Amino acid sequence: MIRVAVAGCAGRMGSAVVDAVTAAEDVEIVCGIDPHASGKADAFPVFATVTEALDAVEADVLVDFTQPAVVAANLAVALPRGVDCVVGTTGLATATLEELAASAADGTCLFYAPNFTTGAVLMMEFARAAAPYFPEAEVIEFHHCNKKDAPSGTAVRTAQMIAEARSPRVSAAPGRETEMPGAEGARGALVDGVPVHAVRSMGYVASQEVIFGSLGQTLTIRHDSWDRTSYMPGVLLGIRSVGEREGLIVGLETFMD
Amino acid sequence: MIRVAVAGCAGRMGSAVVDAVTAAEDVEIVCGIDPHASGKADAFPVFATVTEALDAVEADVLVDFTQPAVVAANLAVALPRGVDCVVGTTGLATATLEELAASAADGTCLFYAPNFTTGAVLMMEFARAAAPYFPEAEVIEFHHCNKKDAPSGTAVRTAQMIAEARSPRVSAAPGRETEMPGAEGARGALVDGVPVHAVRSMGYVASQEVIFGSLGQTLTIRHDSWDRTSYMPGVLLGIRSVGEREGLIVGLETFMD
Amino acid sequence: MIRVAVAGCAGRMGSAVVDAVTAAEDVEIVCGIDPHASGKADAFPVFATVTEALDAVEADVLVDFTQPAVVAANLAVALPRGVDCVVGTTGLATATLEELAASAADGTCLFYAPNFTTGAVLMMEFARAAAPYFPEAEVIEFHHCNKKDAPSGTAVRTAQMIAEARSPRVSAAPGRETEMPGAEGARGALVDGVPVHAVRSMGYVASQEVIFGSLGQTLTIRHDSWDRTSYMPGVLLGIRSVGEREGLIVGLETFMD
Amino acid sequence: MIRVAVAGCAGRMGSAVVDAVTAAEDVEIVCGIDPHASGKADAFPVFATVTEALDAVEADVLVDFTQPAVVAANLAVALPRGVDCVVGTTGLATATLEELAASAADGTCLFYAPNFTTGAVLMMEFARAAAPYFPEAEVIEFHHCNKKDAPSGTAVRTAQMIAEARSPRVSAAPGRETEMPGAEGARGALVDGVPVHAVRSMGYVASQEVIFGSLGQTLTIRHDSWDRTSYMPGVLLGIRSVGEREGLIVGLETFMD
Repeated sequence: MIRVAVAGCAGRMGSAVVDAVTAAEDVEIVCGIDPHASGKADAFPVFATVTEALDAVEADVLVDFTQPAVVAANLAVALPRGVDCVVGTTGLATATLEELAASAADGTCLFYAPNFTTGAVLMMEFARAAAPYFPEAEVIEFHHCNKKDAPSGTAVRTAQMIAEARSPRVSAAPGRETEMPGAEGARGALVDGVPVHAVRSMGYVASQEVIFGSLGQTLTIRHDSWDRTSYMPGVLLGIRSVGEREGLIVGLETFMD
Repeated sequence: MIRVAVAGCAGRMGSAVVDAVTAAEDVEIVCGIDPHASGKADAFPVFATVTEALDAVEADVLVDFTQPAVVAANLAVALPRGVDCVVGTTGLATATLEELAASAADGTCLFYAPNFTTGAVLMMEFARAAAPYFPEAEVIEFHHCNKKDAPSGTAVRTAQMIAEARSPRVSAAPGRETEMPGAEGARGALVDGVPVHAVRSMGYVASQEVIFGSLGQTLTIRHDSWDRTSYMPGVLLGIRSVGEREGLIVGLETFMD
Repeated sequence: MIRVAVAGCAGRMGSAVVDAVTAAEDVEIVCGIDPHASGKADAFPVFATVTEALDAVEADVLVDFTQPAVVAANLAVALPRGVDCVVGTTGLATATLEELAASAADGTCLFYAPNFTTGAVLMMEFARAAAPYFPEAEVIEFHHCNKKDAPSGTAVRTAQMIAEARSPRVSAAPGRETEMPGAEGARGALVDGVPVHAVRSMGYVASQEVIFGSLGQTLTIRHDSWDRTSYMPGVLLGIRSVGEREGLIVGLETFMD
Repeated sequence: MIRVAVAGCAGRMGSAVVDAVTAAEDVEIVCGIDPHASGKADAFPVFATVTEALDAVEADVLVDFTQPAVVAANLAVALPRGVDCVVGTTGLATATLEELAASAADGTCLFYAPNFTTGAVLMMEFARAAAPYFPEAEVIEFHHCNKKDAPSGTAVRTAQMIAEARSPRVSAAPGRETEMPGAEGARGALVDGVPVHAVRSMGYVASQEVIFGSLGQTLTIRHDSWDRTSYMPGVLLGIRSVGEREGLIVGLETFMD
């Protein structure tokens, strides 16, 4: 049984982690950490800080879905004590991650993933694998109207991976020079030479389609995500995998094949 | 049995019309017209001009898939003689069509359609019908790399129909102002306020998707066309319908419901 | 301002109705009815029965998302008092609906819809409209693993509508006789001659695709629904429309063009 | 420059191979073999038999898209002479393939693929890679009405690969026991526990969709093929790859990463 402490256990992502860990049979929650919920009765103790938590209970893994302002301090406590960390909080610079990993006790792992959705990670890996075999590739992402930037980070990353994988070859598809006057933008944004299109609608949460074409055929890889529970299989995969690793590991794909 | 003369019978579209009319049970080809093929042996006589053809054989309907340069002259011969015309040749101004229709014998019909693909016409009609019920709508069109302009005429027309049908309401989705620097075009081209995205790939012939969204739901209407045979059900529908109409009729939707 | 009473206001659907009506500008909640929540403090009074509610407050419309066991009694109180009813509770026989409508005060409307999702209703109407123009049609529905019957009621109804609309024509596609030994079921269930396929996955809530084919083209109509908020635009459309109607009206499509 | 002989050069697949090889810059046709076309004038000599051909011209690779009745004899001539073979003709038993490979000159390769469509092969490989991470998977295949068996061989193979990759885990989705009376087949055919659905329509050539689901997310891999040109990138990949291999190699995936 892997013993898990959940930092940010009262937040939206944190409470979803609590549910997922509770439902799984080979992992258990030993405590939560949340300054705003430390008085809350629960099936496990909740502490105000990571230090208090790790002084009081034995944990194998710390899961951190907190805030950019506190995640580094949390990891700086847990890693030297030999507690593996699974981190979904964004905003940590690579240099900071490396520094934190260097402070870890021997055999301890710092695992950070910008995206814990197994299907989204596979979509990107498959896009990378398919790119060399198709002359054309385009990315369409679909998000809720509340999303305030376009295109999404996942779409940009996917386009970059495609461009790298097919380099030095580039697309020969007609580009923005074929847009009719007044219809600028029809061919999308070019990210490293890959057209990326962003659709916004109240009917979506987070979806993406990668379309590859060659003579007479199309290969489409699509991912649809409907709520934050889609992160949980990836979080569990991280929890189950960090014990066998050490040092800094970035990206869920490391644990998928 | 409806007797059909096919102008441009040796061209790509014309010969597809010949095949479709030949295969149907309630229509028959009485002659072709094609200056480049008038000597060619066939199952029916082929004349160099419409005048020669209509002098020699009785026809109920003239189907014209020729060139902008000759279609008007063809119609100017057939319509006054009382031969209904089904026209897919593009490039005729509305004023010219009206003039030609005015020259027709009593009870004669001039039917022109920019698009004979039944599925594409239905897609546009459904988009018009759905638009009032959804806050958001976007159009994505997919065409072969040989297409030299973007977006397609069908996509532009669809966007215009959506804008009209939901007027005065406009979309509240985040627009081009949310495009990140360097990613201009991600939100597509705005056609009357409707985002239109164009994908180009060797793997497509002509496809289009119209996506409507409202809270918690998405309605998608998609049309895929793989070769010019997709025009033929619409051409046959036109041939069968013109006999009961007169004057100028524009658009296949007139005969669909 | 249309004054609305919500029966079942503490239930899952009822509370979503409360949210949607509260958010809309031209309708307002005057009371709720819910025996389990009548003591609950709220922005509006909650009564234990419809009789108590309509004795105490003036309402134009009663929305009923309750249980098969109580809906008839609720309507039997409201309709004779001249309160229009918008009903999403299933399980009422047509004869019962007709009887209840007959008991209504003059000019009062009983509106019942088995499905309030605007997109799903449009999908069915579009399927009916397209069916005459395509030789083939199949239905694929996608639902969550908790769904305990296959295919869905919406899929069955869609197939029936297609069969009626293209009658007496039937499909000429190869059928179940082409299934290989051991692969029975590959061609789906035949509902009035229309193949219906059911997909089950934790990744879906409720989706459906209707696929029409003819030579060289495919027309696809797809609806995806992600949570019960997708019912709300249809409930609001019902609330806004019943005032101008009387007698029994069945089906949201009546109010959609 | 790789020198290619094309057996069956006058057939449908063979002539597409001729076109593709002619268009590529690093390969060239040195002769064709076709008893029905040996008198035909062309850009290259055409022989009646493989023996005659290889006696007359030097070839590095023999491409064989002929008939089950002649392919073995063709290979039995070419392989002992040290000519690598790229074979798309179906109907050869594994034992026959092994025997033929054993007869090959040192360093000579016999490459056989049941499917040369790069996108279809990748779809299957991606399905295998994704299967361990998703509780549910289903396959939907879409083919033209002329297809006389269901489901397709590719769909069956895909389902088998999914079942193997996720073994010993099986799907927990509701199965055929949830089919309503009269709607048998709704949940598809079970191939090694994976539901497979077959759609038939004049609007398709050959398409397939593999749908993976887990909590709150769906990953879809789709391949659409519109004509036999979709085989050609795979044939070229085979021609370019056999020179570096020897012995029997089965499956295009061997040459794709």
